Amino acid sequence: MAERGRKRKKVKIIPIGGLDKIGQNMTLIECDEQILVVDCGVAFPGTDMLGIDLIIPNFDYLRQNYDKVVGVVLTHGHEDHIGALPYFLREFQVPVYGTGLTLALVENKMQESTVKKYTLNKVQVGDTVTLGCFSIEFIRTNHSIGESVALAITTPVGVIFHTGDFKVDYTPIHGGMIDLPRFAELGKKGVLAMLSDSTNAERPGYTMSERTVGKTLLDIFDRSEDSRIIVATFASNVDRVQQIFNAARDHNRKVVVMGRSMVNVVSTALEIGYLDIPDDVMIDIVDVNEYPDNEIVIITTGSQGEPLSALSRMASGEHRFVSIKAGDKVIFSSKPVPGNEKMVNHVINALMQKGAEVVFENAHVSGHASQEELKLVYGLIKPRYFIPVHGEYKHLQAHSNLIAEMGHPEENIFMMTVGDVLELDKVTGEVTDHFDMEDILVDGLGVGDVGNIVLRDRKLLSENGLLIIVLTLKHGTGLIEAGPDIVSRGFVYVRESEVLLEGCRKVVMEVFDSCKQRRMNDWGGIKIEIRDALREYLWRETKRTPMILPIITEVR
Amino acid sequence: MAERGRKRKKVKIIPIGGLDKIGQNMTLIECDEQILVVDCGVAFPGTDMLGIDLIIPNFDYLRQNYDKVVGVVLTHGHEDHIGALPYFLREFQVPVYGTGLTLALVENKMQESTVKKYTLNKVQVGDTVTLGCFSIEFIRTNHSIGESVALAITTPVGVIFHTGDFKVDYTPIHGGMIDLPRFAELGKKGVLAMLSDSTNAERPGYTMSERTVGKTLLDIFDRSEDSRIIVATFASNVDRVQQIFNAARDHNRKVVVMGRSMVNVVSTALEIGYLDIPDDVMIDIVDVNEYPDNEIVIITTGSQGEPLSALSRMASGEHRFVSIKAGDKVIFSSKPVPGNEKMVNHVINALMQKGAEVVFENAHVSGHASQEELKLVYGLIKPRYFIPVHGEYKHLQAHSNLIAEMGHPEENIFMMTVGDVLELDKVTGEVTDHFDMEDILVDGLGVGDVGNIVLRDRKLLSENGLLIIVLTLKHGTGLIEAGPDIVSRGFVYVRESEVLLEGCRKVVMEVFDSCKQRRMNDWGGIKIEIRDALREYLWRETKRTPMILPIITEVR
Repeated sequence: MAERGRKRKKVKIIPIGGLDKIGQNMTLIECDEQILVVDCGVAFPGTDMLGIDLIIPNFDYLRQNYDKVVGVVLTHGHEDHIGALPYFLREFQVPVYGTGLTLALVENKMQESTVKKYTLNKVQVGDTVTLGCFSIEFIRTNHSIGESVALAITTPVGVIFHTGDFKVDYTPIHGGMIDLPRFAELGKKGVLAMLSDSTNAERPGYTMSERTVGKTLLDIFDRSEDSRIIVATFASNVDRVQQIFNAARDHNRKVVVMGRSMVNVVSTALEIGYLDIPDDVMIDIVDVNEYPDNEIVIITTGSQGEPLSALSRMASGEHRFVSIKAGDKVIFSSKPVPGNEKMVNHVINALMQKGAEVVFENAHVSGHASQEELKLVYGLIKPRYFIPVHGEYKHLQAHSNLIAEMGHPEENIFMMTVGDVLELDKVTGEVTDHFDMEDILVDGLGVGDVGNIVLRDRKLLSENGLLIIVLTLKHGTGLIEAGPDIVSRGFVYVRESEVLLEGCRKVVMEVFDSCKQRRMNDWGGIKIEIRDALREYLWRETKRTPMILPIITEVR
Repeated sequence: MAERGRKRKKVKIIPIGGLDKIGQNMTLIECDEQILVVDCGVAFPGTDMLGIDLIIPNFDYLRQNYDKVVGVVLTHGHEDHIGALPYFLREFQVPVYGTGLTLALVENKMQESTVKKYTLNKVQVGDTVTLGCFSIEFIRTNHSIGESVALAITTPVGVIFHTGDFKVDYTPIHGGMIDLPRFAELGKKGVLAMLSDSTNAERPGYTMSERTVGKTLLDIFDRSEDSRIIVATFASNVDRVQQIFNAARDHNRKVVVMGRSMVNVVSTALEIGYLDIPDDVMIDIVDVNEYPDNEIVIITTGSQGEPLSALSRMASGEHRFVSIKAGDKVIFSSKPVPGNEKMVNHVINALMQKGAEVVFENAHVSGHASQEELKLVYGLIKPRYFIPVHGEYKHLQAHSNLIAEMGHPEENIFMMTVGDVLELDKVTGEVTDHFDMEDILVDGLGVGDVGNIVLRDRKLLSENGLLIIVLTLKHGTGLIEAGPDIVSRGFVYVRESEVLLEGCRKVVMEVFDSCKQRRMNDWGGIKIEIRDALREYLWRETKRTPMILPIITEVR
């Protein structure tokens, strides 16, 4: 009875960051006036976000609650989960926890940043860490990067289980299979809420084991006795890189590693002993042409067709050491990320045109669980509340449908959006609040100084270029001292458009004369009239709408 | 013996236009000083071609040989085969030949253009037309647009067989199956060269019949008794539209047609009697909300996620008449064209978020032949020379491999690039020449006035915006009368960057003072020094590289 009037204790779950993928880049768990941060990653801009390098989560809520933040726990070392740490750690002096490979990649990032004071705490798979009122267990999973973990976060209200990015791999390359027995044990004891990876929720069946790729690679190597072999893959997939090294070793080929991020990851993984490479297999890039074709394997970045990557430069003949030639075999151990298909095709065409054979077949598997695996993990954990994360809306929807079909009550499934605040206890769960969290765009050194207005200007400039009109007036008299001078960029070839630009000059003079007759001497007003008249004239003549910038200068 | 010293008569094949898809937009057949033009289409710009609307074939070679051009023959009415006619016909007064639906769509285009004098000659499937030394037979095929034809072009040297875009459909919706018997007959008589559609040359098996989509649609309609049904598809696929109307009629639903191009094509197809719709099925868009949900079908554009399309506007709530609501069923009777996946996903997410159910399954088939069909047609025609067309390099390569596996001698397979001149006779074939044919970019009314320099400027502007410095000098003295004024767009929020812009002003003054001390009075040189100093300053401060435009004005 003493409890009656008191509010029951609740735990809050707040996904922040992630562009259109909910709960990917950062998730907050809040309880007892303490906030635990899960992951701290970046999103990558769409082609409409002109000139933007990265998108980081909005830290406003964390800033307002600076004293409550107890620390960051990381599920794995992919950019979308660790990439924002250099931005985060320059503001927040809190400890970061992760497994060995994850932290080695974080350390790499931090070395390149200006932040010098930070604390990284390495955990072993299976460890439990206490941070304020939270105790967090790091549980082994499988994914396309090594030492990935799920998190069992015990809060004063109950256990929050976060799968991280995962798949079920019974025969992984490194570190053993996902710890399903521990999942089952936690499920038996009772889990309040589960956040689960939705990337492949639309895909039926099972995701294949990483080990199958190794077999495929060996088959392809077998069939390529006379070729130089070039394998393009994701730099962060260290287990894939390991398998390429293994295939090379089995075929007595030397390996050259190319591409900045590939070189980075391989040397990091070697340093911490995660990669296992016989001493004499890897050779230096400058020696690549010292060996016959059938004794060389090149592992490279560029599997997404990135125009500046090592593979693209090899294909276009712009690489310092390697040019593609007839007989080369290029294996894409990868799949185009949606939106990159055209760039990838472009590189494939270029490779083929140089005479290379390009191979795709089965040389890649996904790192994310398909429907049967998602159902398996749900069936083991059996949480009271289910929260699909790490997916676009359609993926979350597919995941929700899947879990609902297994009998989970629909009212206990929460499809959240960035900034939603979900409050839970053992009795009820509901979204009680929402923070507006605009994406923070990073352009060069600028964080958040490019927003919608700047992007709108860039879009306008990108489509039709610009026209500048410079007019110098005499102070007091309003007479023209110089100009109108017209400068254009990205609009038309100036050489071929003298008539058009002369027409513009005439339009400007007409507007100016008319303004003078009306005794208008408000420069802002004159500029607007010039702009409107020019816009109309140019649309009529060219059906284009460049940005028009009248600049009026006054001299005395 | 009389022949010995004389050159044997040859026929030339010259693919022009088509960006990275060879032989798609326009192909020239030249013999006896006469040129036949096959198709006259546009390519669509990649995302790197900022602000470009269309790309048309380069007509330079045709201009230089104006008197030789005998006419244009069209294979079908898709934009990539007819879209450049308004540009072509304003220069070339030659007759155009095509089937009824093709010409009706051409007529539509010409009405919207400023060209008033042109001759369109309608042919029936099966007709033969004589143009100069060429006689051209129009032979029925199947494709994703009605009344598509292959062309058997009899030249003085032999028969050139051009498949056009095709598939083999034994149960088409309209007009009967591809005329394989005639193909076989021509093959028996002997074909010198075949140009064949390579779009699906990487795809094993057979492409399904268009009719299978009708069955799928009926199934979905059966399962959607209470829903408003919205079907998004390609406007030009009139047979698809016919099947949607049929399904609606069978389910006693009224049909509303939405989207400019959809309305255009439907009314054109109705006018020429190609579409067969009962009088009372189609209703006006303004009446769409007069009927209950389960009595309405909306056919709409936007299946590629185009941001301004009717479907996107319905999804975002910006459409005048229709907003998506819970219970709506949206059928994508389409497949994303490579490069559009992200836009399509964006629309799907938006539709789902409004509560619509989105359906993809089997509601689309390709209009292009898969490997078994390609082999069938090759096996019937058995040409001496084989030229894979209508594909990126990788498609042409796959098609070549396929035909080589059937025993075609590899030296008689020609993988051409735009501008190659292939000379053939019954004895030899070789690429004897190559014309450099730069793509002609269309931006608004401008044809070819946007080239690499303009595009490079647009790219630069799009990524980092621009900074303008205006400096007004006194003639003779070289003293500053006004400025430096600094204007920026698409670079940084001006409000938040006063310090930075003040820094720019300081840099400009320092450079200017230094120039003055060195008695430098070459404005061009001063501008370059200002630009270089500002570039360095801005890179240091922001790691960005905006376009920097110093403008110096002189007053007396």
